[in-house]
Amino acid sequence: MAKRPLKSSVLSVMGRRTKEPPISWLMRLKLERPKLISLAAGFTDNSTLPVDESRRILNKMLGETSLGEASLQYGSTAGDDTLRDLTVRRIRRLDGNLPRQAVAYDAKRTIITNGSQQFLYMVTEALCDTGDIVLVEDPTYFVYLGIMQSRGISGRCVRMNRDGIDLEHLEQVLESIRCAGELNRLKILYLVSYYQNPTGRSTSRRVKAGALELIRHYERAAGHPIYLMEDAAYRELGFAGQQAPSALSVKGAADRVIYSGTYSKPFATGVRVGFGLLPDDLLAPVLRIKGNHDFGTGHLGQQLIVRALESGVYDKNLTKGQRKYHYKANVMTDAMRKHFPESVQWQPPQGGLNVWAEFPRRINTGIKSRLFRKVLDRNVLYVPGGLCYIDEPTRAKPNHEMRLSFGAASENDICKGIRRIGQAI
Amino acid sequence: MAKRPLKSSVLSVMGRRTKEPPISWLMRLKLERPKLISLAAGFTDNSTLPVDESRRILNKMLGETSLGEASLQYGSTAGDDTLRDLTVRRIRRLDGNLPRQAVAYDAKRTIITNGSQQFLYMVTEALCDTGDIVLVEDPTYFVYLGIMQSRGISGRCVRMNRDGIDLEHLEQVLESIRCAGELNRLKILYLVSYYQNPTGRSTSRRVKAGALELIRHYERAAGHPIYLMEDAAYRELGFAGQQAPSALSVKGAADRVIYSGTYSKPFATGVRVGFGLLPDDLLAPVLRIKGNHDFGTGHLGQQLIVRALESGVYDKNLTKGQRKYHYKANVMTDAMRKHFPESVQWQPPQGGLNVWAEFPRRINTGIKSRLFRKVLDRNVLYVPGGLCYIDEPTRAKPNHEMRLSFGAASENDICKGIRRIGQAI
Repeated sequence: MAKRPLKSSVLSVMGRRTKEPPISWLMRLKLERPKLISLAAGFTDNSTLPVDESRRILNKMLGETSLGEASLQYGSTAGDDTLRDLTVRRIRRLDGNLPRQAVAYDAKRTIITNGSQQFLYMVTEALCDTGDIVLVEDPTYFVYLGIMQSRGISGRCVRMNRDGIDLEHLEQVLESIRCAGELNRLKILYLVSYYQNPTGRSTSRRVKAGALELIRHYERAAGHPIYLMEDAAYRELGFAGQQAPSALSVKGAADRVIYSGTYSKPFATGVRVGFGLLPDDLLAPVLRIKGNHDFGTGHLGQQLIVRALESGVYDKNLTKGQRKYHYKANVMTDAMRKHFPESVQWQPPQGGLNVWAEFPRRINTGIKSRLFRKVLDRNVLYVPGGLCYIDEPTRAKPNHEMRLSFGAASENDICKGIRRIGQAI
Repeated sequence: MAKRPLKSSVLSVMGRRTKEPPISWLMRLKLERPKLISLAAGFTDNSTLPVDESRRILNKMLGETSLGEASLQYGSTAGDDTLRDLTVRRIRRLDGNLPRQAVAYDAKRTIITNGSQQFLYMVTEALCDTGDIVLVEDPTYFVYLGIMQSRGISGRCVRMNRDGIDLEHLEQVLESIRCAGELNRLKILYLVSYYQNPTGRSTSRRVKAGALELIRHYERAAGHPIYLMEDAAYRELGFAGQQAPSALSVKGAADRVIYSGTYSKPFATGVRVGFGLLPDDLLAPVLRIKGNHDFGTGHLGQQLIVRALESGVYDKNLTKGQRKYHYKANVMTDAMRKHFPESVQWQPPQGGLNVWAEFPRRINTGIKSRLFRKVLDRNVLYVPGGLCYIDEPTRAKPNHEMRLSFGAASENDICKGIRRIGQAI
């Protein structure tokens, strides 16, 4: 055989297509510059981590032989039954225990995953082929955009109001997809419904119900169900105002709402336990995929969460965390008022870990912008708003916003970081 | 719009294609019949689980504030650097610390995953499109066949000898793929090289080196690298005889060997920490995919493994486990000698968790066979050998073997189970 250079790539289409997630790049920048003040990372506050509480729970758990053995042994693919049960009861309680929608809160429809990210990944695998369409908020959670990019999924964005997506615009988008004959490719409407990452906005029940009704209407033309995937990752990190119930509480939700949540951010990000609820038709396909991924989430972490929930340690720690984030959000917005020009706008967050700062359109905040470089020269990092938008021919991609996280940075660093950004502006 | 029934499936090709993994079905059977003696499950022995040791490590870890906080916080996508370093040093030591191949054992090429299963999944995602070809042992690890099935990958089997695949047959298979003009679709040769699941056989260094040389030879015609993926999941569960070094020790391995291993089975299956080593060219693509899956394996489990390795607890517990499995393997083969007809053959295992029993060809052991049903009627479950084979037109699929696991069942149940299978025969 003649010696030929090995030219063609050995990677799969997905292997070639998958871009580096911005999250990895942001994490690496932080590692390379230890003095960097990162207002970019989605890390939680170290002081809110239940170190002593976890120690005591684990000590007790592993002090009982049979419970200890069960915790260190394989579980089942869907996850621990007690945890699945506690999970649906918790969501139902948060939703106000409506008696009529009980079927939507069935433990059997629940699956425990390695953080909610794995759940989003597997649901997308089960539903979407290359070229399929997912509707996202404009802007949306950028790590989910990474999953879509990797799988060649086409995103269409729906404008946001203060209480979630604009239903009129949703209808326009659905109508334009129908006119293009592409409704058969539409699979999911993806909403980050509580203290949205990045904007901090929450979706009202009215919008959830309206969105569900609209996509149901277009299902007939699509020829298949269109799912509302509600990402409630930040739901438990609310610290001000009232919370709307989830889309599970809407009539008919059991067949169409995919609900994703996590114990990771509210309790401990190092214990990667998330969960999801699925319509019956999707349960088996997603469980099969989970069987191939890892045949079940680590049992030790699941058992820790079970004991934290049952003992009240989880809720107690959560209250502590919510107070801390409320305080830090105020520290950040106070500093912003002091150091940012008046032309910069934001809403005081009611939960989550981020402030979304809107600059005048002429100020470019993108990765290649002068501002980003000047801020980085001052050892401060933020998430450029542009990362949270998909490319869409019908509108110019906004690049004049910043996601500023108050989760991980100390109060002192928050103040310093905001001051330096103010100077750079 | 006219009301039409929602006919077409909403699932992706993969969602529709993915079959229920046999492992899930076997696990469910066990749940449905609590009295069942399962010689099918790949669970480890509860008595070997380091319950007290883990309690002490976690107690100490979470007793130190900063270490405790780090353990409960996000880590990085690739995994904890100390664990990556300990991992490569451990493999290198097992391989005999050859000075010349140092480059293959670089911590930077290592990635920590949710068990080794997730690693196998992500590598396959990065390399294989639908229709691509993976070479597997005949028989092979059936959960990996599930990953291949799910992704529409075409398997070709290579016959096995006592010391791994038959190199002459490997060459024939490669040659037939070349003749069919399909070498450009061939991506991986997958070898379960230590105490293979299901047969218990190990691959000699000679076969590893020969296989690597052969696939390298065909690369020129393929136009891209062909990787040797060595699955060493059972490597640390050896209890008799000598162990061959891994394929990483072979000259040129750094560019072509993908090595997969785990701390899960040897230490605690409830702490799902596995790992893999990758050629440089594959590191970035797989890390990107990991970023989309879960941006990093749970830190608490990783830190527990680090402390177990550093303190010697891991090795001490491993020795205990190896002794236990050696004893249980003997219990099983003793019972087989007593209760099975002489026509049934097996090799005494030198490691792993399984005995591979070969019945005369006229005895069908398959899921739909009379024997399987009769054994199940006696409340005993085994893995039918047929599950471990791919469909291949060039040979009839063997269905006269059983994988019998001595991992989880008690000595008493092993004896009872084997006796009942003997009666059923």
